[in-house]
Amino acid sequence: MEAQAKPVLAITMGDPAGVGPEVIVGALAQRRVREACRALIIGDARTLRMASEALGRRFRPKVVGDVEEMERCTSAVCLLDLVNADPDEIPLGQVSRAAGLAAAAYIRKAVELAEAHKVAGIVTAPINKEALRLADVPYAGHTEMLAALCGADPVAMMLVHGDMVVSHVTTHVPLRKACDLVKLPRVLDVIRLTDQAVRRMGVLRPRIAVAGLNPHAGESGLFGEEEEREIEPAVERARGEGMEVFGPLPPDTVFARQRAGEFDAVVAMTHDQGHIAVKTGGFTARPARTARLAARPARVSARTARETAHFGTIGTGGGGLRVGGVNVTLGLPIVRTSVDHGTAFDIVGQGLADYSSMVDAILLAAQMSRGRG
Amino acid sequence: MEAQAKPVLAITMGDPAGVGPEVIVGALAQRRVREACRALIIGDARTLRMASEALGRRFRPKVVGDVEEMERCTSAVCLLDLVNADPDEIPLGQVSRAAGLAAAAYIRKAVELAEAHKVAGIVTAPINKEALRLADVPYAGHTEMLAALCGADPVAMMLVHGDMVVSHVTTHVPLRKACDLVKLPRVLDVIRLTDQAVRRMGVLRPRIAVAGLNPHAGESGLFGEEEEREIEPAVERARGEGMEVFGPLPPDTVFARQRAGEFDAVVAMTHDQGHIAVKTGGFTARPARTARLAARPARVSARTARETAHFGTIGTGGGGLRVGGVNVTLGLPIVRTSVDHGTAFDIVGQGLADYSSMVDAILLAAQMSRGRG
Repeated sequence: MEAQAKPVLAITMGDPAGVGPEVIVGALAQRRVREACRALIIGDARTLRMASEALGRRFRPKVVGDVEEMERCTSAVCLLDLVNADPDEIPLGQVSRAAGLAAAAYIRKAVELAEAHKVAGIVTAPINKEALRLADVPYAGHTEMLAALCGADPVAMMLVHGDMVVSHVTTHVPLRKACDLVKLPRVLDVIRLTDQAVRRMGVLRPRIAVAGLNPHAGESGLFGEEEEREIEPAVERARGEGMEVFGPLPPDTVFARQRAGEFDAVVAMTHDQGHIAVKTGGFTARPARTARLAARPARVSARTARETAHFGTIGTGGGGLRVGGVNVTLGLPIVRTSVDHGTAFDIVGQGLADYSSMVDAILLAAQMSRGRG
Repeated sequence: MEAQAKPVLAITMGDPAGVGPEVIVGALAQRRVREACRALIIGDARTLRMASEALGRRFRPKVVGDVEEMERCTSAVCLLDLVNADPDEIPLGQVSRAAGLAAAAYIRKAVELAEAHKVAGIVTAPINKEALRLADVPYAGHTEMLAALCGADPVAMMLVHGDMVVSHVTTHVPLRKACDLVKLPRVLDVIRLTDQAVRRMGVLRPRIAVAGLNPHAGESGLFGEEEEREIEPAVERARGEGMEVFGPLPPDTVFARQRAGEFDAVVAMTHDQGHIAVKTGGFTARPARTARLAARPARVSARTARETAHFGTIGTGGGGLRVGGVNVTLGLPIVRTSVDHGTAFDIVGQGLADYSSMVDAILLAAQMSRGRG
């Protein structure tokens, strides 16, 4: 097998007052991360220097003026310095308009590069919604901003954590409102987006489970009608389009079944169906299985793809409990992954931030950008 | 420490056509189960004989006419034979009126014995709702039937699985209806019941987390109002009564926090909040921790109590992934635990039924009946 060119990923620095700069420094210090991609950080050199000092790490990205300059050099880690986060103006661990403006500028630049195919994907560090609001950036968060910048609709949020892959029909709305939003067209859209994303992770024919909304998936209408009226017809339509889709299945067991390998992904109806499963389920690495699958290239499962994402290359092994987790935005014309945590203002600058989610986000973006087209 | 008399537990055989008889035979074959209690099966000798033959196990419970006769003998496992499940009338793996009648009779007898303090608690094997309906037994399931027989109100369902302990404000209702049922008095009732139950498991001062209903526990009203209107006032009232209660907390992380040891139990708002967490979270035994806690008797944590339940006595060790899970009915005047699975008609008589949930249900009932009064 020939060596493949490493994808160039834009990594936005996030809110300069948060843990974004620290988790970027920590993640890019990992050899398996540098082996999986070439990183173009979009941020500010001064902030990154402070973060590396806080971590006690030597971190010297090559500062480049544009992607072309990056292509001419050999550095695995480069920095596009937007010189917009003055440490004197932006106190660490605090909400500020200056930080919101800077964070938004990183995202805009990254989207511009990705849409021009100058980078293969985007990985985002956490932003602060309040800082964005102070900066008059009219979006509730990353997903909304990226969808608007790319003119993308529909989009959906997927969480990937170890052996779990879950996309969401609804997210940040009251639970009553979520019940109202579970409609055939939206469910079908999210099934389609999930199928595409899991293919991009390397699965030839994804097996997708669709959760019900109600207990026991409605128990034949006894505990709710959304399954029969909205979800089941969406599943039928998706099957008619050739996808391998199952459901609606009881929400309480579908995630454990996915985790056990019966499905490659689950479509959850609500934010907390998916988030409870992923955040409670955790992850236990299975190196033996990884090795076994490596000897069977004919069917590449989502698990293999994810373990590739986690461990760099199949067969390098690994073990122990992982605490990371990755947020993937489906429906954008570009690859975009993100950490699953916030700015964590309470621990900024103390070297306490766990960077494993950033590691996973970068590895998965590298995997998905290789799986494109 | 003096040896304590082993509690006598009534174990109802459940639907004779289901896997109940098999999981009872399998569980009672375990030495740690027989060491934790004396078992009085309430069922039918013919059905149990068939089940033991299916499992290839020798199983000869001593048949007794009443509890007094059991007290005069030394057998760890006795049978109160109601002679009401004729194998010629009750085909295995099928719904029948005869099976429903028999299953209901076991439950009634067990409640009668428990209310008369002749047994210390009840453990129930699975019943079939459709069979109950054919037998004109007007209850949706065990919990409703037990509550009616005991005249108990309020009651609540708790799931215990390894290191997870979760009680539920709502269960078998449509999700929209569950939103309507999240009201201050009900939330307060379930907090109180949870506190009592966890004390009975051996925790001196339970730390109870209360989940929100909406994503991010409503994010200050942005994603729903139930937290501020109903749940938070209930938490305040419970604190006023001297309980150590936290919340409302974001549903997506509260279960992982409980699992990590921050709380002894979680009060979930919906069936699937709790059930997704418990069924996806699984269980990994921690013998090292068990041993450490055994050396620190001053504060007995819920985890210790549960590990006692799992492993018989603290310090006996154990390991590997557990698949069992136990359903506990809170609010009854009697101790009642149950397996967390159904009659599994598709695998009856094949020796395939996993009896670990029945093992756990018996051990937890033994633990809770010792913790009474």
